[in-house]
Amino acid sequence: MDVLEMKDPAFLKELDDRQLRSVAEDIREFLISKLSVTGGHLGPNLGVVELTLVLHQLYESPKDKFLFDVGHQAYVHKILTGRAGQFDTLRQHKGLCGFPKRSESIHDCWETGHSSTSLSGAMGMTLARDLKGSDEHIVPIIGDGALTGGMALEALNHIGHEQRDMTVILNDNEMSIAPNVGALHNMLGRMRTAGKYTRAKEDLEMLIKKVPAFGGRIAATAERLKDSLKYMFVSGMFFEELGFTYLGPVDGHDINDLRSNIQYAKKTKGPVLIHVVTKKGKGYAPAENDAKGTWHGLGPYKIESGEVVKKPGPPSYSGVFAETMKKIARTDEKLVTVTPAMPNGSGLDKFAQEFPERMFDVGIAEQHATTMSAGLAAQGMKPVLAIYSTFLQRGYDQLVHDVCRQNLNVAFAIDRAGLVGADGETHQGVFDISYMRHLPNMKLMAPKDENEFQHMLFTAVQHEDGPVAVRYPRGSGIGVEMDETLQEIPIGQWEVLKKGEDAAILAFGTMVPVAEAAAELLAQKGIYTEVVNARSIKPLDHDKLIELNKKQKPILTMEEHVLQGGFGSAVLEFYHEQGIHSAVVERMGIEDCYIEHGGVPDLLKEVGLTDESAAARILEMLPTKKQRA
Amino acid sequence: MDVLEMKDPAFLKELDDRQLRSVAEDIREFLISKLSVTGGHLGPNLGVVELTLVLHQLYESPKDKFLFDVGHQAYVHKILTGRAGQFDTLRQHKGLCGFPKRSESIHDCWETGHSSTSLSGAMGMTLARDLKGSDEHIVPIIGDGALTGGMALEALNHIGHEQRDMTVILNDNEMSIAPNVGALHNMLGRMRTAGKYTRAKEDLEMLIKKVPAFGGRIAATAERLKDSLKYMFVSGMFFEELGFTYLGPVDGHDINDLRSNIQYAKKTKGPVLIHVVTKKGKGYAPAENDAKGTWHGLGPYKIESGEVVKKPGPPSYSGVFAETMKKIARTDEKLVTVTPAMPNGSGLDKFAQEFPERMFDVGIAEQHATTMSAGLAAQGMKPVLAIYSTFLQRGYDQLVHDVCRQNLNVAFAIDRAGLVGADGETHQGVFDISYMRHLPNMKLMAPKDENEFQHMLFTAVQHEDGPVAVRYPRGSGIGVEMDETLQEIPIGQWEVLKKGEDAAILAFGTMVPVAEAAAELLAQKGIYTEVVNARSIKPLDHDKLIELNKKQKPILTMEEHVLQGGFGSAVLEFYHEQGIHSAVVERMGIEDCYIEHGGVPDLLKEVGLTDESAAARILEMLPTKKQRA
Repeated sequence: MDVLEMKDPAFLKELDDRQLRSVAEDIREFLISKLSVTGGHLGPNLGVVELTLVLHQLYESPKDKFLFDVGHQAYVHKILTGRAGQFDTLRQHKGLCGFPKRSESIHDCWETGHSSTSLSGAMGMTLARDLKGSDEHIVPIIGDGALTGGMALEALNHIGHEQRDMTVILNDNEMSIAPNVGALHNMLGRMRTAGKYTRAKEDLEMLIKKVPAFGGRIAATAERLKDSLKYMFVSGMFFEELGFTYLGPVDGHDINDLRSNIQYAKKTKGPVLIHVVTKKGKGYAPAENDAKGTWHGLGPYKIESGEVVKKPGPPSYSGVFAETMKKIARTDEKLVTVTPAMPNGSGLDKFAQEFPERMFDVGIAEQHATTMSAGLAAQGMKPVLAIYSTFLQRGYDQLVHDVCRQNLNVAFAIDRAGLVGADGETHQGVFDISYMRHLPNMKLMAPKDENEFQHMLFTAVQHEDGPVAVRYPRGSGIGVEMDETLQEIPIGQWEVLKKGEDAAILAFGTMVPVAEAAAELLAQKGIYTEVVNARSIKPLDHDKLIELNKKQKPILTMEEHVLQGGFGSAVLEFYHEQGIHSAVVERMGIEDCYIEHGGVPDLLKEVGLTDESAAARILEMLPTKKQRA
Repeated sequence: MDVLEMKDPAFLKELDDRQLRSVAEDIREFLISKLSVTGGHLGPNLGVVELTLVLHQLYESPKDKFLFDVGHQAYVHKILTGRAGQFDTLRQHKGLCGFPKRSESIHDCWETGHSSTSLSGAMGMTLARDLKGSDEHIVPIIGDGALTGGMALEALNHIGHEQRDMTVILNDNEMSIAPNVGALHNMLGRMRTAGKYTRAKEDLEMLIKKVPAFGGRIAATAERLKDSLKYMFVSGMFFEELGFTYLGPVDGHDINDLRSNIQYAKKTKGPVLIHVVTKKGKGYAPAENDAKGTWHGLGPYKIESGEVVKKPGPPSYSGVFAETMKKIARTDEKLVTVTPAMPNGSGLDKFAQEFPERMFDVGIAEQHATTMSAGLAAQGMKPVLAIYSTFLQRGYDQLVHDVCRQNLNVAFAIDRAGLVGADGETHQGVFDISYMRHLPNMKLMAPKDENEFQHMLFTAVQHEDGPVAVRYPRGSGIGVEMDETLQEIPIGQWEVLKKGEDAAILAFGTMVPVAEAAAELLAQKGIYTEVVNARSIKPLDHDKLIELNKKQKPILTMEEHVLQGGFGSAVLEFYHEQGIHSAVVERMGIEDCYIEHGGVPDLLKEVGLTDESAAARILEMLPTKKQRA
């Protein structure tokens, strides 16, 4: 069947195993071909082709609910539910979303993007079902990496306790985004090699029956063992302890094995966990043989060779981060780095090559990463936590309660701040200023380019009076020359990049070059704009702000961030605090909404963060152009 | 030995068991007596007397590090480290803190207050120790309730994986703040009755030796069992699976049992978990026999009778919350309530008496509680999540990612918003406006009194276009009459309580009565102030703000919350967004620092949120008094 003709997954019900395998082949071919052009999460989706087919064959979507944890493995589900035709626009502006999206299809009942949320969502849906007395199946599909996230463990604990009907699919691909860490991962490894639960159960019953009777204490032990058979299975005990019926391990590419286990789960009362072992990248050699996680999510590639198409350009911010950390670590023994499951993304894999003992990947565990960094700092180390802006949202209380309150010297390298593009809503790093600016003791900076970035990182590590956060964008620098020697940047001191008498733009981070371009445009019209690299938001440069006000020129703030509580608000707060109630300050940033996926330039245009908009705004603000209210 | 003479815990090293028991008795007597006057966390501390004594006897604090999870069980530690003399000021303004505090003692190496942070802090300290090559012991002490918090589970996973030396004391008192929920809790219960690990190990080895040889598959199973002995112990398997050596269960009131296990742990390589079973309230009958959690933390009581001293007064906000939920639930079948381990504190225990099927206590699991509520709403229920302001900090990413982004109808009853008093820094609910105001789709309100509160809760539940949060203070209402019938309050519409031509105060929540009092003071001086109950912060009342600006009078905003990104900032943002650059707006709130413990009236005075300060501020703002900048 042509993949493009799939509209409703109900067609799968009629198919036999041979036909299903043929559909699986078609879908794999389609994915490998389409993603070679658009890029996307190829590896995870190739791994779940058979699993998704069997789920749609045995359950009744949309009545039954599939919750895809993280959600980048929902492409097969999207194809089966009539969205194959949109794959040319995958992750592009106004195109098909790379994650489940309720507005796209009635088959998408739960939106994801961040890890470890599916079990909690599923539990809510399960309680709703039981309260309403309906009978739909609730089926969260969660990876082994996502399982280490604290909220997934909280949910397991509650689901096991409540004993309501739910089938959890544990998609164990032996490697989440990066090689997985943690005791749970080691345990899953043991389970995979330990053989089947059901067989072990039979064997054990026979074994115990044949145990001869002993007197006294040992007999009592044997009795207790008989009474608690389930504790004795090597496989699945961890989940059985938590109150789940454990099924597996199941070969995730064996349709028959999948089907029989899911059918068994459907008949089982209470929560069931099916341990499905899949191979990431299954069916496409370059992705199957991927040791570094390249094929987890990537840009365009050549199908035949598996060669990834790379654009030449300036070094990435992550690359500069790794280089700078190495440079500092060579002379500062106290420097250590921490990442929650992003050794590649953050660049710390390169750091670890030189300093394997000083890089800690804690798995998907942002809360733990944040507070563990506090613990390191409490004992005199200088931890640098490399974390994406949206993932640090998971560590917000830990910032408030552990890092800032104890005023510990943790440096935060906040990657993917601002608009990130193709990953969309869940990954846009546009809230961090607002969730960090009110934290006592925190300092918050952003560089205008990659050279300033290395100095800022150095500054953050050198700082010895509490936490410092440096936020920086996804992707490449702008191609400036890199200084050899690292220097400290005075925190709370801004840099004037261009003088101008008519107006001023205070720009933060990525907006600095945009502000410079706006000033160019304005200069062509005879308007001269001061451009300030407002590189420190907390603290602000008070002297500079007072000086600007004295000149009574209009001030425009620019930030790649939501307006509520952001950098511009900090400037307003400062002036009013000083009793300065007449400063003409306007703010440019992102309005009060979530920003969908798309190329960053498209998105910046959409939200109005361009040189043209800034120039136009300044023109509007000039006294001759507009009467002040 | 006189408790007041204890200065350095080293004195314990010389004592034999009889003497230790005598010290334990003295400390219990001291605690029961002192706390009967000051109030405090009596139950948890009576439960850990012997444990704390033995820890201090066997380890070398401050070189060795104790991390008390949550920290309200650190009173015995405080006594042993020379702070008994300060117990008359416990939890009072400028007095002894109810939690570990680094500025109080070199023996307090890690500050707590929120649950589940100790393991992550300990892991950081352990890594620091190993990097530095020193040899101190790191000993986190964590309760069974705190263990269900996601970050504690993240930490267990990482600690088990790293296999570094650390001794975790699991203080299993069979009941955390409320009767514990969750599969982990059930599991601990099984372990408590299952007998000792070491003995089971010996027995099992003998048992397996005597298993006769079988052919084929069963023989293989038996072999596998022999190879993986540790999986077979009923006790501790969960922790062994995670990579810990499990010791216990240990009687937490048996000094000898405690000592031998801790000594064994000190010699054991890798992470060890000692499962200590204690009795909350041990040694004081009223606290031992406490089924409702009253003696967990409380105010003054009569020692002889155990009668808790109650002040008469208006109903508490929690009480009104419970009553209102019941009232709505009687006619609205879709209403359900959720609490993360605070059934008593939130008042939901009363709701559960009438609607046991519609109240879900998920244990200490704020992330799960938030996203589970989203799941309930996704399936058409109307969940109300009752949660303290500082604990919702744990659910921040879940607000961003699951609730607000999917625009689901979850109502948040944010209890303990504003200053909470005796619990201090970690519990002051002074960040919620800043961490919620920038969330797209969120609405945020606060009532001026308990009557408005019930209507606001009703409004939040009725609202059908996304999440609504209602924040309200700890403690009693102000004693107004309660309406019989619940009414909707128009979201985004403020209430003018008093007219006045000279100035205006926009007050949020608890600040409304303070603003009214300030207006009275000003009226005595002939200054007439408009008082506005700015009950909705998101959205603001735009019409009212425009109207106020037209009158060109000075505007003072008041909020029991930090100034950065708070209500006042929202007002500034609005005016500047409208191109109104001349509004004389000043803001009163809490400065950029953490607020320590103390009575709320004292704290309000300290931060300057009083009627006198507000009146003085208005006077300063009046044009005749001060030239505008």
